[in-house]
Amino acid sequence: MNCKEVLERIYKEIASKENKGAIATYIPELAKVNPDNFGVCFLSVNNEEHGVGDWQTKFSIQSISKVLALSFAYKTFGDEIWERVGVEPSGTPFNSLVQLESDNGIPRNPFMNSGAMVISDMLVSHLENPKEDFLNYVREICGSDQIQYSEAVAKSEASVGYRNKALCNFIKSFGNIENDPNEVLDFYFHKCAIEMSCQELSKTFLFLANHDFRTTKGKKVLSTSKSKRINAIMQTCGFYDESGEFSFKVGLPGKSGVGGGIVAVYPGKYCITVWSPKLNEKGNSYRGMQFLETFTTETELSIF
Amino acid sequence: MNCKEVLERIYKEIASKENKGAIATYIPELAKVNPDNFGVCFLSVNNEEHGVGDWQTKFSIQSISKVLALSFAYKTFGDEIWERVGVEPSGTPFNSLVQLESDNGIPRNPFMNSGAMVISDMLVSHLENPKEDFLNYVREICGSDQIQYSEAVAKSEASVGYRNKALCNFIKSFGNIENDPNEVLDFYFHKCAIEMSCQELSKTFLFLANHDFRTTKGKKVLSTSKSKRINAIMQTCGFYDESGEFSFKVGLPGKSGVGGGIVAVYPGKYCITVWSPKLNEKGNSYRGMQFLETFTTETELSIF
Amino acid sequence: MNCKEVLERIYKEIASKENKGAIATYIPELAKVNPDNFGVCFLSVNNEEHGVGDWQTKFSIQSISKVLALSFAYKTFGDEIWERVGVEPSGTPFNSLVQLESDNGIPRNPFMNSGAMVISDMLVSHLENPKEDFLNYVREICGSDQIQYSEAVAKSEASVGYRNKALCNFIKSFGNIENDPNEVLDFYFHKCAIEMSCQELSKTFLFLANHDFRTTKGKKVLSTSKSKRINAIMQTCGFYDESGEFSFKVGLPGKSGVGGGIVAVYPGKYCITVWSPKLNEKGNSYRGMQFLETFTTETELSIF
Amino acid sequence: MNCKEVLERIYKEIASKENKGAIATYIPELAKVNPDNFGVCFLSVNNEEHGVGDWQTKFSIQSISKVLALSFAYKTFGDEIWERVGVEPSGTPFNSLVQLESDNGIPRNPFMNSGAMVISDMLVSHLENPKEDFLNYVREICGSDQIQYSEAVAKSEASVGYRNKALCNFIKSFGNIENDPNEVLDFYFHKCAIEMSCQELSKTFLFLANHDFRTTKGKKVLSTSKSKRINAIMQTCGFYDESGEFSFKVGLPGKSGVGGGIVAVYPGKYCITVWSPKLNEKGNSYRGMQFLETFTTETELSIF
Repeated sequence: MNCKEVLERIYKEIASKENKGAIATYIPELAKVNPDNFGVCFLSVNNEEHGVGDWQTKFSIQSISKVLALSFAYKTFGDEIWERVGVEPSGTPFNSLVQLESDNGIPRNPFMNSGAMVISDMLVSHLENPKEDFLNYVREICGSDQIQYSEAVAKSEASVGYRNKALCNFIKSFGNIENDPNEVLDFYFHKCAIEMSCQELSKTFLFLANHDFRTTKGKKVLSTSKSKRINAIMQTCGFYDESGEFSFKVGLPGKSGVGGGIVAVYPGKYCITVWSPKLNEKGNSYRGMQFLETFTTETELSIF
Repeated sequence: MNCKEVLERIYKEIASKENKGAIATYIPELAKVNPDNFGVCFLSVNNEEHGVGDWQTKFSIQSISKVLALSFAYKTFGDEIWERVGVEPSGTPFNSLVQLESDNGIPRNPFMNSGAMVISDMLVSHLENPKEDFLNYVREICGSDQIQYSEAVAKSEASVGYRNKALCNFIKSFGNIENDPNEVLDFYFHKCAIEMSCQELSKTFLFLANHDFRTTKGKKVLSTSKSKRINAIMQTCGFYDESGEFSFKVGLPGKSGVGGGIVAVYPGKYCITVWSPKLNEKGNSYRGMQFLETFTTETELSIF
Repeated sequence: MNCKEVLERIYKEIASKENKGAIATYIPELAKVNPDNFGVCFLSVNNEEHGVGDWQTKFSIQSISKVLALSFAYKTFGDEIWERVGVEPSGTPFNSLVQLESDNGIPRNPFMNSGAMVISDMLVSHLENPKEDFLNYVREICGSDQIQYSEAVAKSEASVGYRNKALCNFIKSFGNIENDPNEVLDFYFHKCAIEMSCQELSKTFLFLANHDFRTTKGKKVLSTSKSKRINAIMQTCGFYDESGEFSFKVGLPGKSGVGGGIVAVYPGKYCITVWSPKLNEKGNSYRGMQFLETFTTETELSIF
Repeated sequence: MNCKEVLERIYKEIASKENKGAIATYIPELAKVNPDNFGVCFLSVNNEEHGVGDWQTKFSIQSISKVLALSFAYKTFGDEIWERVGVEPSGTPFNSLVQLESDNGIPRNPFMNSGAMVISDMLVSHLENPKEDFLNYVREICGSDQIQYSEAVAKSEASVGYRNKALCNFIKSFGNIENDPNEVLDFYFHKCAIEMSCQELSKTFLFLANHDFRTTKGKKVLSTSKSKRINAIMQTCGFYDESGEFSFKVGLPGKSGVGGGIVAVYPGKYCITVWSPKLNEKGNSYRGMQFLETFTTETELSIF
C-alpha cells in the first residue's frame, strides 16, 4: 500500500462530496473560521510524514488539549489523579451536569468538560505559572516554539461560557475543585484556545503511538504504561457520547475538538490528524469522522 | 518471553492471595458453584494453547453469550441491527432501565441486558428452532458438540428474573421487541445458561483474534470488518459500567459474565479466557480482572 | 349563587367550544368510547345533587380507582403502608420507571402506576377474594350494587399492558411486591376497569368531602384524619406531572383517569365529577380540566 | 377551643422533647445562631394574635423570601411569568440541576432555587433599585420599616454559594436569565438574607389568608385569584422534596427556609409562623414541622 496515495485519494473523494454539519457558533470567535478548511497529516512512528490540504494551517484545538493536560497531570501526580476523576465513558454529552450530581462531583472521565476542569484545577494548584508552563510543556513535545494561545478565542469563550462556569462552580460545590473557579476557568479557556496545525498535532501526539518517543530535550513524555492508559481512555471516552460509534467505525483511540480537529493514534504504527470545521450533531468533525472511517476501513489498519 | 511460564507464575501468585468478592447469588443455581475454581486458557492465532488450573471445567458463561448472539445476528441481518440497538457505552449498570426511557426503548449497546434482549428477539423472529439453532452455531465455531444449555440454570433464572422480565416488557412497550416477551425471555435465559470451559471459550472466540479463522466446516464466521466492529464494541461496552476501567487496566476488548468468566481478545495475536466465580462490586470476576491486568501489564501485550 | 345554573352555563359554554385532545387508544377497548360524551355531577355534603349531560352514563374509571384502593388499604393496614410507598409528588409521568431505580423500588406515591401496584399487592395478600371483595367495598360506599368490572377492558389492557408488566416485575425485583406479578397485575387491571357514572363517582367520593359520611350500613369509611390525608395526597399527586397545574388552576384535591373522568373534592363542601374522554398531552381530560378551572374560578370555591 | 392555650401547650410539649436535626452550616454566618431558639406566632384573619417563645426575635428568612419575590413578580408581570418557570412539584432536592438539563433551563417551580433565580432575574430587569425596591415592598405589606437585609449573611452566602452560582450560570446557558449572573446572584443572596421575626412574617403573609387584606397604604397586595394560586404552589412545592409529606401531615400551604422558619397559611382563617433553627434531613425545621403537624391534627384545622 502506498500510504500517501491512499490519503490523497480519500481526501479528494471526501472533498468532492457535500460538506455537511455546522460550525460551532457558541464561541463567537470560532464562528469566524472558513468552513471549507480541510487538512490531514499522517505521521508514522518512523517519521514518515504525509500532509494533504490545509495541513499546515493553525486552528483552535479546543478539547484535543484535554489529552495534553491529562498527560501533564498524569506525569506530575501519577495515579492519585484517579481519586478525583474516573476513566469510564459517560453515556452523556460532553457538558452534561446530570451525572455529576449522582456521582458527587467526581467526573466520569478526564475528557468530559467536568473532568478536564478537575485536571485543570490540579495543574493550577501545582504550576507556578500555569498558562506559561503548560504551553512550554506542549512546545517541548511538539518540538516547536511557534505554539500560542489565541487570546481572542479564550476571551470569546470566557464571555459566553456559562455552561462551563456552571460546571466549575458545581464541582467546586462538591469540594472537587481546590482553587477559585474563576482562576480554573481562565486556565481552562486558555488551554482550549491553543492553536496548532494538523502537522503540529501529529508531531505532538506521536508519543502515544511511539512508546520510544523522546522530546527534543531527550526526555520520555510518559512511561509506556501511562501512555497506553491514556490511549485506552481516548478509545472509550474520546468522542463524548459518540465514543462507541468512533471506536466501532474507526477502531482507533482518538480525541476530537469543536474546532473541527480529530487526532487518532495507532499504537506502534502511526498518528493521524484531520481538520475540517463543520461538526456533526454530536459535535465531532463531519469530514474528520468520514475520513478516518474510510482510511481505517480501506487500509484495515485499525487496532481491532 | 515464555508465555506458558508467565501464565503459570501469575496464576500461582493470584491463587496465593485472598480471593475477594462474592459469588452471584441472585440466580440460586449459580450459587452452588465452588468459589475456588480458577482456570485460564491462552490460545494464540497459531493455535499455541496453554491451560492452567480448572481450564477444562465447564461453567455458566452467562453474558459472554451476548457476543456470540450478536455475531449470529450481525452475520444474519448485517448493519440493519443497528437500527434497533446502539454501539455506545452506557455509563450505567448492566440491567438499568433508566436510559431506555429517555432513549425510547433503543438499548445503548448489545451487551447490556436490554440490548441482548433485542438481539435475542431478532434471532427468535428469524430462526426456526431458536435454541437448537443457536447452540449449533456455537458448536460449529468451537468445533465441539459437547456444548449444552444447563436447563437447571435457565429454569433457576427464569424463576427469579424479575428485572429481566421488566426489561423485556419495557422494551416491548416501546415496540422494539417483536415477539411475545415470554418467548424472548425463554431464549435469553437459555442463551445465558450455556456451559463451557475456558478451553472451549478460547476456541470459540478465536475468530475475533484471527481474521483468517475458519470453522470445522471451512466457513468464515464473520467478515474481517464485522469482526473488528464486534471487538470495538467489546472494548467500549464489554464490562458494563466498568468498561472504561477494564480498557484502562487491561487494554483489550473483552466480555465478562456473572458466572465469573472473562474472555479477552488481542486481535492478530491471541484469545485468553479466565474463570473465577467470585465477582467484584461491578459484577466482574475479581480474580479474572486481576489476572488479565497483571498479564497485559507484564507482557505489555495490550492493543494500546 | 345558584349552583345548578352555574354548572349548566359552564357546561354549555364548554360544550360549544372545540373538543381538543385525543382519546386514550393504548387500551384498544377504551378507544371505542364516543368522544363527545360529556357529563357532570355535583354533590354537596348535604346531598344537594346536580347532574348535567351524560352524568348517568357509565365509563371506565381507570386511575380514579387508585383512590378507592388506597382508602381500602389505608383502612386495613393503617400507617404501615407508608413503609412501602411514599406521599411525594414525583415530577415524572404516571408510568415512569426512572425514579423507581434510584428509589430502590419504593414508589413515590400511591397514585402513580407503580404505587398503585404496591397497594394492589397489599390487597391481594390480604383479601380472600381480592376482586370480589374490592368490588363490594366500592359498592357499599356508593350505596349501589350496580357497579361492575368490564371484563372486556381488563382483558384489553392485559393484552397490551407491557409497561405495567415491566413496572410490576421491576418492583418485584426490588422485593416490594409480595405476590406473583401476574396475580397482582390481574387485580390491577380489573380495578382500573371498574365502570361507574359521574353520579356514582360523586356519591362514592363524598366521604372525602363529608367527614361525617356513613355508608348504607352506617359505617364510617375512614377516620377524619385518614380522609384528610388522602385529600392531601390527591392535592399534590392526583394528576401525575400535571398535579401542580391542577392545584394551581383548580385549587382542589382530585384524581383523574385515562377514561376521561376527573373527581374533585372540596372538603366540608362538595364533591364534583366531570367526564369527557378526550385527553390533553398529560393524559388528563381536556374538558374536565377546563370545566373545573372555570367552575372554581367563577365560584371562588377553591380551598385556597 | 382556646387557641392561645392550645398553642402554648403544644409549644411546651415540643420544647420538652429532644431537639433533633442540625443547623444549616453551609452558610457560615447562619451557623452562629442559637439552636435552641423556638418561637411561634399565630395571626387570624381578624387580627387575633398569639405569640409564644422567641416570636419577636429576628432570624434569616432565607427561602421564605421566595414567596414574597414571587408575589412581587406575579403582581408586576402577571401570567407571563409562567413562560419562564413552571408550577409543578419537582420530586427533587431544592438545588438539583438534573431536571433543568432535560427541561432546557425552565425551572419546575418558583420555590426551587433555580425558579427563584429566574424570578429574581425578572425583578432585576424591571426594578430601578432591585434590592431597595424589594425591601420596600416587603416593608409595606408587613407595615414595618424595621426590616433589613443582613449584609453579613448575604456576603457569607456569596462566599460559599458555588451551587447557586452553578445554577444561575446553568440557566443563563439556556437563555432563561437575562442579566449578568453575578447581578442576579447578588439580588438573590440579599433577598434570602432578609431578617424577620415570627410576628413580622405572620403579618406579612396574612394577605394570603385574608383575601380582603389591605396594606397600610390601603392597597391590595394581589388579586384574590393570584393569591389563591400562590397558595396552591406553596401547597404542592413549598417544601422541596418533602412537599408531599408536609401536605400529608400538616395539610396547609406553607413555605420553609433553611434559617429554620416555616410560614403556613389557612386561607380564610389564619397564618402561622414557627421558627426553630435545627433542620431535618430534607432541610426543613425539625420542630417547625412537628409543631405544625401537632397543631393541625389536634385542632383539625387543615384545609382538607
